[in-house]
Amino acid sequence: MTVTKQIKEIAKGIYDSILKKKQPNLESPLRALSNVKYDDKLGYFELIGKKKSRTLTVGTVKTFAQTLRMMTLSKDLVDKDDIATKREAYYVSKNWGEARFTTQPESDTVMDDVEAMLMVNREQMGFIPEEKGGDVAGKLIVVDKDSDTGKQIKIDCTKMGSGAYSIPSSVEELKFETNAKFILAIETAGMFQRLVKHNYWKKADCILISMGGVPTRACRRFIRRLSDAKKLPVYVFTDSDPYGFGSIYRTLKVGSGNAAHINKYFCVPSAKFIGITPQDIVDYKLPTHPLKDVDIKKIKDLLKNDPFIQHHKEWQNALKQMAQMKVRAEQQALAKWGLNFVISDYLPKKLKNEKSWLP
Amino acid sequence: MTVTKQIKEIAKGIYDSILKKKQPNLESPLRALSNVKYDDKLGYFELIGKKKSRTLTVGTVKTFAQTLRMMTLSKDLVDKDDIATKREAYYVSKNWGEARFTTQPESDTVMDDVEAMLMVNREQMGFIPEEKGGDVAGKLIVVDKDSDTGKQIKIDCTKMGSGAYSIPSSVEELKFETNAKFILAIETAGMFQRLVKHNYWKKADCILISMGGVPTRACRRFIRRLSDAKKLPVYVFTDSDPYGFGSIYRTLKVGSGNAAHINKYFCVPSAKFIGITPQDIVDYKLPTHPLKDVDIKKIKDLLKNDPFIQHHKEWQNALKQMAQMKVRAEQQALAKWGLNFVISDYLPKKLKNEKSWLP
Repeated sequence: MTVTKQIKEIAKGIYDSILKKKQPNLESPLRALSNVKYDDKLGYFELIGKKKSRTLTVGTVKTFAQTLRMMTLSKDLVDKDDIATKREAYYVSKNWGEARFTTQPESDTVMDDVEAMLMVNREQMGFIPEEKGGDVAGKLIVVDKDSDTGKQIKIDCTKMGSGAYSIPSSVEELKFETNAKFILAIETAGMFQRLVKHNYWKKADCILISMGGVPTRACRRFIRRLSDAKKLPVYVFTDSDPYGFGSIYRTLKVGSGNAAHINKYFCVPSAKFIGITPQDIVDYKLPTHPLKDVDIKKIKDLLKNDPFIQHHKEWQNALKQMAQMKVRAEQQALAKWGLNFVISDYLPKKLKNEKSWLP
Repeated sequence: MTVTKQIKEIAKGIYDSILKKKQPNLESPLRALSNVKYDDKLGYFELIGKKKSRTLTVGTVKTFAQTLRMMTLSKDLVDKDDIATKREAYYVSKNWGEARFTTQPESDTVMDDVEAMLMVNREQMGFIPEEKGGDVAGKLIVVDKDSDTGKQIKIDCTKMGSGAYSIPSSVEELKFETNAKFILAIETAGMFQRLVKHNYWKKADCILISMGGVPTRACRRFIRRLSDAKKLPVYVFTDSDPYGFGSIYRTLKVGSGNAAHINKYFCVPSAKFIGITPQDIVDYKLPTHPLKDVDIKKIKDLLKNDPFIQHHKEWQNALKQMAQMKVRAEQQALAKWGLNFVISDYLPKKLKNEKSWLP
């Protein structure tokens, strides 16, 4: 069912309630960690079904009106093929009279409620993130369309020179053509630039994606849609530190706790971590930095509270190993063995040796 | 003179000194605010000629050796058409025996010294920034080359769909083809995405560049080279706040104090600020946020210490007006008048009315 159709049905339900002189009611899933579970087969944090209900009363009248207004805005966006950021949606409300929002967090919460109510992601509702997605280079043609003419546009990511294709804020409509063998998702822009400069994607027959730290929604959704559509394995290459493991990789692979109603769109359950692992620091004698207090705290947190880490013995061992070694290492540390050691040795060896990966 | 040639000459000078049993000496400009001036005709902070000299002694032997090693690395990069980030250069030094760096700040300082010594920017020395540049869409063809074959690659920024061309870390070798009338540099990714979605560049005959906050070196250099090569005016569109004025716009236009030896490469003296000005907040009755303490402090700082602001009465008045109004506004606040008011009204009116700009 399309978003527009869903919105129309909910609106009709409310309209009918009013005609029947019954109190109108809106229902959406409870968005909290207490309402999620981790299922290895699904591969992401999933809602377990607790709901919250908002009945129209004197106390809820403003939020109720705002929710309906937000649904109207979403319907308009989808009907007109337009977009709005969360911030723009907040400002649009300034013309809603008494239903206008006073601060953006209020408007964000209502948007999240509607998103959860419709069980879609807000990009499908016409709302786009403030921030951009990642960068792409390599064996991929992105099929997009001209928004004026509707004519197909093919963007060849092998023909970007030293630059790259920048992923748009919303990727729902994109299609893909590729005969690459895998996707390599890279933490830092510097490492991405090295692999692009040396056309690594030609040698390895792959698609390179620069995440630039924790991947944005658009970047995660792009990788997910691309890997689903073309049945491509996704390999992730980050610094060897708790942030690379627990924030970048974990978020890409299974999603996050406070956005569980949309994880199924934004996670990449098939992703594998190819490095840099704590064992790589030993095996490649990499230059290191001492763990900071915040790193040690993050390791403890992950071991104690993260359902994904708790599910994987291998990750627990890796984190414990790092805690014992008391050091972390950056992707660029491989440059100790020569600037292009990563291309000539590290990546080819890693990709061949599945045993050296983490799940 | 090429970088390689310069390095060879300096090396020869040192070699000759040694043969003559004289103490070898390296000279570079003093990098500090006390060694810069602002000249309106030049349009950027410029060095006034104070130098520091490093003579080879027992005390300087390690830094001296590191400086020569860094010059060698740079020469290798240029000769082999390779690149290295600052971080990679640091790790490469781990194989320099006793001349290796202990921390990256040490290695960064030596790189900055060499950059100042050669009076080039470090991209010309083969060193690239960690972070990526901005995003581009609109009437521009970027001419790059395939690094394997050397064959020309033309990247048409009108054919990126809802995505964009992502500027590489180093833009020194790029060439341009365009018949656009101007460059519009935009602060936020969200606003950029709106203008791209609605093909604003078609209607306005322009090139859109998303800076994503304070523009990176690569982004500034890209805008500078493009506007120089094609004699294009540059209009800058940011939030109406001291950060937009004093950090984003000021840095793009005249550079920064602590990098004065390279400002001439990275500033865009011809840039004009088209909004959002404090007067726009009044004229367009925009929704605002109260100034934070840090905003008020920044306004005072700019008025008191910034040579660029001190040079322009208009900017002083604008900052004083904002201080009196006690509010700031975001680009997206224009959405109060409709999501596409920025396209249908604000930008066309602004671009026609030069008097509403700031210098």
